[in-house]
Amino acid sequence: MTDATTRAQRYTHGRAVLDSVDGSAGAAVVDGLADISPELGHQVVSWAFGEMYSRPALAPRDRQLVTLGMLTALGGCEPQLEVHVNAALNVGLSPDQIVEAMLHSAVYCGFPRALNATFTAKKVFGERGLLPRSDSAAPDGGPQ
Amino acid sequence: MTDATTRAQRYTHGRAVLDSVDGSAGAAVVDGLADISPELGHQVVSWAFGEMYSRPALAPRDRQLVTLGMLTALGGCEPQLEVHVNAALNVGLSPDQIVEAMLHSAVYCGFPRALNATFTAKKVFGERGLLPRSDSAAPDGGPQ
Amino acid sequence: MTDATTRAQRYTHGRAVLDSVDGSAGAAVVDGLADISPELGHQVVSWAFGEMYSRPALAPRDRQLVTLGMLTALGGCEPQLEVHVNAALNVGLSPDQIVEAMLHSAVYCGFPRALNATFTAKKVFGERGLLPRSDSAAPDGGPQ
Amino acid sequence: MTDATTRAQRYTHGRAVLDSVDGSAGAAVVDGLADISPELGHQVVSWAFGEMYSRPALAPRDRQLVTLGMLTALGGCEPQLEVHVNAALNVGLSPDQIVEAMLHSAVYCGFPRALNATFTAKKVFGERGLLPRSDSAAPDGGPQ
Amino acid sequence: MTDATTRAQRYTHGRAVLDSVDGSAGAAVVDGLADISPELGHQVVSWAFGEMYSRPALAPRDRQLVTLGMLTALGGCEPQLEVHVNAALNVGLSPDQIVEAMLHSAVYCGFPRALNATFTAKKVFGERGLLPRSDSAAPDGGPQ
Amino acid sequence: MTDATTRAQRYTHGRAVLDSVDGSAGAAVVDGLADISPELGHQVVSWAFGEMYSRPALAPRDRQLVTLGMLTALGGCEPQLEVHVNAALNVGLSPDQIVEAMLHSAVYCGFPRALNATFTAKKVFGERGLLPRSDSAAPDGGPQ
Repeated sequence: MTDATTRAQRYTHGRAVLDSVDGSAGAAVVDGLADISPELGHQVVSWAFGEMYSRPALAPRDRQLVTLGMLTALGGCEPQLEVHVNAALNVGLSPDQIVEAMLHSAVYCGFPRALNATFTAKKVFGERGLLPRSDSAAPDGGPQ
Repeated sequence: MTDATTRAQRYTHGRAVLDSVDGSAGAAVVDGLADISPELGHQVVSWAFGEMYSRPALAPRDRQLVTLGMLTALGGCEPQLEVHVNAALNVGLSPDQIVEAMLHSAVYCGFPRALNATFTAKKVFGERGLLPRSDSAAPDGGPQ
Repeated sequence: MTDATTRAQRYTHGRAVLDSVDGSAGAAVVDGLADISPELGHQVVSWAFGEMYSRPALAPRDRQLVTLGMLTALGGCEPQLEVHVNAALNVGLSPDQIVEAMLHSAVYCGFPRALNATFTAKKVFGERGLLPRSDSAAPDGGPQ
Repeated sequence: MTDATTRAQRYTHGRAVLDSVDGSAGAAVVDGLADISPELGHQVVSWAFGEMYSRPALAPRDRQLVTLGMLTALGGCEPQLEVHVNAALNVGLSPDQIVEAMLHSAVYCGFPRALNATFTAKKVFGERGLLPRSDSAAPDGGPQ
Repeated sequence: MTDATTRAQRYTHGRAVLDSVDGSAGAAVVDGLADISPELGHQVVSWAFGEMYSRPALAPRDRQLVTLGMLTALGGCEPQLEVHVNAALNVGLSPDQIVEAMLHSAVYCGFPRALNATFTAKKVFGERGLLPRSDSAAPDGGPQ
Repeated sequence: MTDATTRAQRYTHGRAVLDSVDGSAGAAVVDGLADISPELGHQVVSWAFGEMYSRPALAPRDRQLVTLGMLTALGGCEPQLEVHVNAALNVGLSPDQIVEAMLHSAVYCGFPRALNATFTAKKVFGERGLLPRSDSAAPDGGPQ
């Protein structure tokens, strides 16, 4: 980190981190920015992923737990939440943990935010063949 | 309330309250959660409606006034606002009162939130055959 | 409303509405703006209260229910919430109804917003000699 | 401003300001309100544009910079942001300045809000034939 | 969970969970509600902690990571963030992990939210004798 | 920008930009982070100011207009707003323009956010000897 780096080198480093966390969904966002704001794409890659995500002080799965909490709370971030539900699965969180994090969000953000996040997870899980989930709570009081 | 209840009993009680307030729209939300987070559906029913909505300290119409204010202010809650515009009509608020509450919201939340809420009401009112509304302000300065 | 009015006349009309709803707390806000943004004070009075609050389509108590919901949901509006807890009492909402509206907000905004609003109500109620409140729920499970 | 005006006169004045800033997009919003809340349309026109926008203390382009910042930060205001990206172009901000304002927003609102705003600008720019934009940063580190 | 429970039993169970996670800070919040909204205190204890926090699908430390993300993103929740920085330490997150989660939040919520959260952590860490922290990044570019 | 730079060089560059925009208020924030999160201070300096603020596509005064809009809209950012009211004055916005931007915010964010921002400006203006401001609107309808 004390070595001199060029802007292009920082981009290359960030792109590797982005790919490892977000997979093709992250690349699609950056590609979508190419004709309107390539600099925003550059900063997502070089700064957000190259500088922040690559720090070792928090494990990738832990970063996604924090990120799911933030995106749920902010509201109106369904496109980004979709990317990060995928990212959460990519870095080792289980479907149950993701759904539980969104259930937990009802306590702090209220039910509308928890519902919007959960329906975003439903969309991603469906695309990845992860539905239906089993849930131990269903027998004694869930819907039939 | 001092009697012992089971989880299933609390669900049954909450479901009756949910149905009386939200009608089929509330049931549709709970059904949509069945394969992804039945526990979230359970908590909407058992806690939000069974515990909170069933308290007598605030009349059902008053709860919906507070709820319309919150959902408008939060932003990004159009699906929930749609459910609760229906709920507001179900529990006795008039179309004029609902539209006026959203007009009032411009003072505290600004026009974008007021506009988004009002266009959500327009969708629901249209589905229920409540359009066009008359409005006494139109003659002296509304659009033609 | 079809008659011609001057800016000063609209201010005078709005000030009467403001005084009837917010009492001295509203006047204090307007006075505090005199040396920094008298125009903001003018618009609070002439537009928010003179135009919006004076419309008959929603009763004053109903406007305060919507307003309490919005201010709770927005967060960071404790000074305005303090004014409007007072306003809510002024226009006929009971302490129980105000506290219940804030309890209800936990469902839609989560507990942090509900707590901040409730502690603001506690401050206002204390200033008006309305504490402690009795609460029927206490015997079977509230704190001792 | 000290002269007496009627409600209809204030509407006519505001409509001229609205048309000059927002163009046909603003008119479409007001028209869409005609059957649900003509009074909300009246207040957008008469108060927001007639009273606030017409004040000389801030240039139209400066008002749009502030407005783009607010709409980006609020989140969930994509319909309004679409209107105001058009408005920003109408009052003389360049495409580069608009995109840069949204890039700048990442610092204060985070990347999800910046991304949502930028993709809204992309939609408007596409409709107005302003894509692709050139960006000097691309050569040394943007996506290929 | 299929057994019948009374309201008082659910409170007792929740209180044990609250105490184990939040320690005396959680109890202080509930005590502060006793004279204004004991029912809100009851629901924090019985529902938030007794029902939601006690579910095994997410480890206590993982719940706090999500919670720190939400409270940082919501803004205006400094009192709750203070409780949960303490809670995060209580359930095994290290000071470095907490500070890193808040640094990470700058990517999604922007710097103002990240700064407010970090200064709240500073207050709690100071009270618990955890300052100054060492940070490996300081030598090559932090402030002197 | 295509040249290789070290982390320390990027910090030095950013610090010069920070000092030119925020003055001593920015430095105080960075200093306050030294014992809790020097990395957050580093990123404020190196990335926010060194990378983003130093881009020529938007004039410094224009950046502050966008920033004032965002901080007002976000809410709960009074400490940052205080820094940026100072910054706005430093880069050439007049007191009238700053106050007008906050008045304008009432249209998009509602009055509570506009009031909180304006009272923050009042504090800063008072510290800099800029009060009372004259305001042409006062004669015909402002408070006495």
